[in-house]
Amino acid sequence: MIEHLTIIKVGGKLVEEKESLQTLLRDFSRIAGNKILVHGGGSMATTIGEKLGVKPKMVEGRRITDEDTLQVVTMVYAGLVNKNLVSKLQALGTNALGLTGADLDIIRAKKRPVVDVDYGFVGDVVNVNNRMLRELLMNGAVPVIAPITHDGDGQLFNTNADTIASELAIALSSSYRVTLIYCFDKRGVLMDESDENSVIDEITMAEFEEMKSTGAVNGGMIPKLTTGFNAMKKGVDSVVVTNASALSGSKGGTNLVLFHEEEDE
Amino acid sequence: MIEHLTIIKVGGKLVEEKESLQTLLRDFSRIAGNKILVHGGGSMATTIGEKLGVKPKMVEGRRITDEDTLQVVTMVYAGLVNKNLVSKLQALGTNALGLTGADLDIIRAKKRPVVDVDYGFVGDVVNVNNRMLRELLMNGAVPVIAPITHDGDGQLFNTNADTIASELAIALSSSYRVTLIYCFDKRGVLMDESDENSVIDEITMAEFEEMKSTGAVNGGMIPKLTTGFNAMKKGVDSVVVTNASALSGSKGGTNLVLFHEEEDE
Repeated sequence: MIEHLTIIKVGGKLVEEKESLQTLLRDFSRIAGNKILVHGGGSMATTIGEKLGVKPKMVEGRRITDEDTLQVVTMVYAGLVNKNLVSKLQALGTNALGLTGADLDIIRAKKRPVVDVDYGFVGDVVNVNNRMLRELLMNGAVPVIAPITHDGDGQLFNTNADTIASELAIALSSSYRVTLIYCFDKRGVLMDESDENSVIDEITMAEFEEMKSTGAVNGGMIPKLTTGFNAMKKGVDSVVVTNASALSGSKGGTNLVLFHEEEDE
Repeated sequence: MIEHLTIIKVGGKLVEEKESLQTLLRDFSRIAGNKILVHGGGSMATTIGEKLGVKPKMVEGRRITDEDTLQVVTMVYAGLVNKNLVSKLQALGTNALGLTGADLDIIRAKKRPVVDVDYGFVGDVVNVNNRMLRELLMNGAVPVIAPITHDGDGQLFNTNADTIASELAIALSSSYRVTLIYCFDKRGVLMDESDENSVIDEITMAEFEEMKSTGAVNGGMIPKLTTGFNAMKKGVDSVVVTNASALSGSKGGTNLVLFHEEEDE
């Protein structure tokens, strides 16, 4: 029987605020079976970068990763955030192993090609080392993955954590029945942004496109849904957008679906 | 037959200067068989700490690790330095895996007891996870270890990299024939500090104590020799103090010995 794998993506305020983080990690540590945590760095990289005199570089409205920024995100994501998550998970009895894409060559990327904008040291994922990740999971390790990748030639890259979660889910769906959960500070995709109780149970790609065009979904939700639908299309069993408290139960949040059940009749 | 394991400790200028680092990593990548790299952070933690407004805290002449300093060393050692080493080793075909003591719970420490000085978040090693390190080595991974440990209750610690190298060597000497090499910027222990060619081939504990009392060895050499002799006494096969270029050959440097061969006649 094919085993189950839960991939949780966390970021933003969830990893920055002590209490929400502790709840999240406790709930994560209680998930049975194979699991992977993928984290972002919230605004910490910006705060620390500013203190170091590294200003966010913008080109045509896009944030780019120059050499100084790469150093900052490597320090903050792979050092500060990752090792704090690992030590806190160890305290909860979860055998966490902090990784970047460079460690054991688990995620290779290539520099994003320059079309209109040179994003600098931003990497697009080109390979996930399925065999190595399976070996780690089989040995009971719980990978905690920072959004830093490498090209195999000694260059590190900044890679979006939502994308990493999605690419891992896609690659590992050949070996596991994968549930991919994007955790953020809302209960799910909301019909009405001001009403936390207006969570949409299911959303299709078409509905997402529609909501995007009307501005009903925006900001950080867009990459989650975009990478989430990409994962669904490529064989990931289940993709959910929700908040941390949903991890402790089996219900809640917004399920991404390729089509609604009733459309299937 | 008992397998061989080479543990290399590097630090200081070696990891800071691009050229010496590249030579070191190339030589390290050529070492056959089981190997572990333990690194310090050189002066980078101080430089970055100062930029962040974190001043080195001294109490009675001793450097202490307060909470801000712990954050800085976690960022710099486990993030910036560690991941750069890992990605560069991957480029050289070495399957590097960056670790702190918290990852897979490989090195537990406890807060250094307050006697005269409260060192803050400085951890003394209490346990090395021999089984886990053996599993990693058997699977062909090359651990690259940052000098950060944890207590198993969610607290990270700053731990001296020379001590980590020595404790790893001692713990793993029950499973491997261990060679421990402290790499620094001199060819070995020098009879005359101003003469790079006055390398002492062998040094005993008594000779070290004598040289310490006359000031003939000082600074960073003292913890290397102290932790090195501790390793020798506790069953480590061979301990050498040398520079990086010695890694490519089998000769060079100063060997720590419990007694000179001729004394044994």
